[in-house]
Amino acid sequence: MEPLMIVHGGAWAIPGELTERSLNGVRRAALEGHRVLRSGGSAVDAVVAAVTVLEDDTAFDAGHGAVLNLKGEVELDAIVIDGRDLSSGAVCAVQDIANPVQLARLVMDKTDHCLLGGVGANDFAKEQGFERLPPTELVTPEARAEWEKYIKFTTAVGALFSARDGDPKLTGCDTVGAVAMDTSGNLASATSTGGITAKKPGRVGDTPVIGAGAFADNDVGAVSSTGHGESIMKVCLTRRIAELMERGLSANEAAKTALEFMSTRVGGAGGVIVISKKGEVCHSFTTSRMAWASVTQGTLKSGIDPGQEFTENLKN
Amino acid sequence: MEPLMIVHGGAWAIPGELTERSLNGVRRAALEGHRVLRSGGSAVDAVVAAVTVLEDDTAFDAGHGAVLNLKGEVELDAIVIDGRDLSSGAVCAVQDIANPVQLARLVMDKTDHCLLGGVGANDFAKEQGFERLPPTELVTPEARAEWEKYIKFTTAVGALFSARDGDPKLTGCDTVGAVAMDTSGNLASATSTGGITAKKPGRVGDTPVIGAGAFADNDVGAVSSTGHGESIMKVCLTRRIAELMERGLSANEAAKTALEFMSTRVGGAGGVIVISKKGEVCHSFTTSRMAWASVTQGTLKSGIDPGQEFTENLKN
Repeated sequence: MEPLMIVHGGAWAIPGELTERSLNGVRRAALEGHRVLRSGGSAVDAVVAAVTVLEDDTAFDAGHGAVLNLKGEVELDAIVIDGRDLSSGAVCAVQDIANPVQLARLVMDKTDHCLLGGVGANDFAKEQGFERLPPTELVTPEARAEWEKYIKFTTAVGALFSARDGDPKLTGCDTVGAVAMDTSGNLASATSTGGITAKKPGRVGDTPVIGAGAFADNDVGAVSSTGHGESIMKVCLTRRIAELMERGLSANEAAKTALEFMSTRVGGAGGVIVISKKGEVCHSFTTSRMAWASVTQGTLKSGIDPGQEFTENLKN
Repeated sequence: MEPLMIVHGGAWAIPGELTERSLNGVRRAALEGHRVLRSGGSAVDAVVAAVTVLEDDTAFDAGHGAVLNLKGEVELDAIVIDGRDLSSGAVCAVQDIANPVQLARLVMDKTDHCLLGGVGANDFAKEQGFERLPPTELVTPEARAEWEKYIKFTTAVGALFSARDGDPKLTGCDTVGAVAMDTSGNLASATSTGGITAKKPGRVGDTPVIGAGAFADNDVGAVSSTGHGESIMKVCLTRRIAELMERGLSANEAAKTALEFMSTRVGGAGGVIVISKKGEVCHSFTTSRMAWASVTQGTLKSGIDPGQEFTENLKN
């Protein structure tokens, strides 16, 4: 079966100076995930590999480059879901590790739990041999500057997730994610984030929550989301997209319908990437921009503005 | 409009010696919630009041009487959801406070977030004037004894959440919850737990997760769940029940269908209480027992074994 790969680098008002870095980052991640799939890796292997690339890229709010909470510290959330049996692992408010998505995978593979948080998650990281980085290691000058500017959280939320008429110069909250179908037809999804600038310490957003930040079920489809976390949680955005696909909507119709519901019911904006069990691959967003890239049938596609689609044929 | 109230005290193999205490506890909580509704309180007021009664009752695994994690410490999760606008507040892995559901309500009312965890949640509790109890204050001799017995978590999960042929002598994991419809027809749900004995420190279960431990939407219905947390999270149990009601199933059919799906897809057992927007009130469980009580049309109903229903007419 032809492997399918799609990634996102966050749905928000991505400023012009980040356009090229964001596009390059999502393209590299999609290619890496697809490389894993082509070499026989599982869908889970692929989404973890793709999200690792995005976590290591300081253009995105995950791993290196994550935003700072109210106290000026980095707290990271991540999740991975295996569509075969709905297995899932996630971490929340974990600190000073480079690749939370890899820790999330170990929660799935090595524990009886789905979600570990805070000090407990860091203790588990230590048990599993993860290096604990110095507290400033993940912090970029841009994240520090943004924190100083948006220290009042209510301002940040309003500014970052307002609709397409919002101020596009603001810097932001580029949660990352990946969805894959492997050569056996298995689905998986993964999402990782530093959350939202000036969040309260201990704030957990949608990312590590099954049915909010991610969902995957071989019998339906797989989804990863980004945007205003509290809104995504309230409407169970990714589970809602899965249920709409179960009711017979296409991946694209399901994504648009659920995002529209989120906008009208709770006033939140965001974006998603989806692969249905039938192999439909799509993205959709209600923020002003979302960086995304996919690899399907030997073609790398990508974009950042509404309706935009760059296409590149990949020589094998 | 006639107010409706239903509560649960956990779905598991409740041992015989806890039968009367469990039944009395859920009856007191349902009556207290109903009293709040009759005096004009909102659905949110009622579920918080009912869950507070259950947290204060050491027969249940929430607040006083909560189980201990692997380190022998209490870590509490709780959530409340307002069906009017899907507002929600929750806490996870919070320590040494008597009523986490009241803290969850303040997360909803006083912050821009839905979920605060660990040290951040305790810092918020302090900000809000919650008393920090001594670390042993919430621990009952029974919880301590159970922890000593089930220090190996894999044993505990297998024993506590096995199907109805499981060993009924085991002590357990009685997460509590409440669902209400107030005289204006508004719905709310709340759930609170100490989690599962010998859980890893920092483990977050289904309880504080929207769509897992609880869901509420005036346009559909409200649900609170209990049982094997990881299974409930994987299938988004309470959101799944809501979506089945949206598709036209009765509250009872939706609850049974979703619990059956959880059993067949991920092998998990649990229980739920539901009030639909039409005013259907029901409970359902796939564990050997679940303590529940409801007040509807001047009648207090309650039960703990499958098919059991005690009825008492309330004189006003």
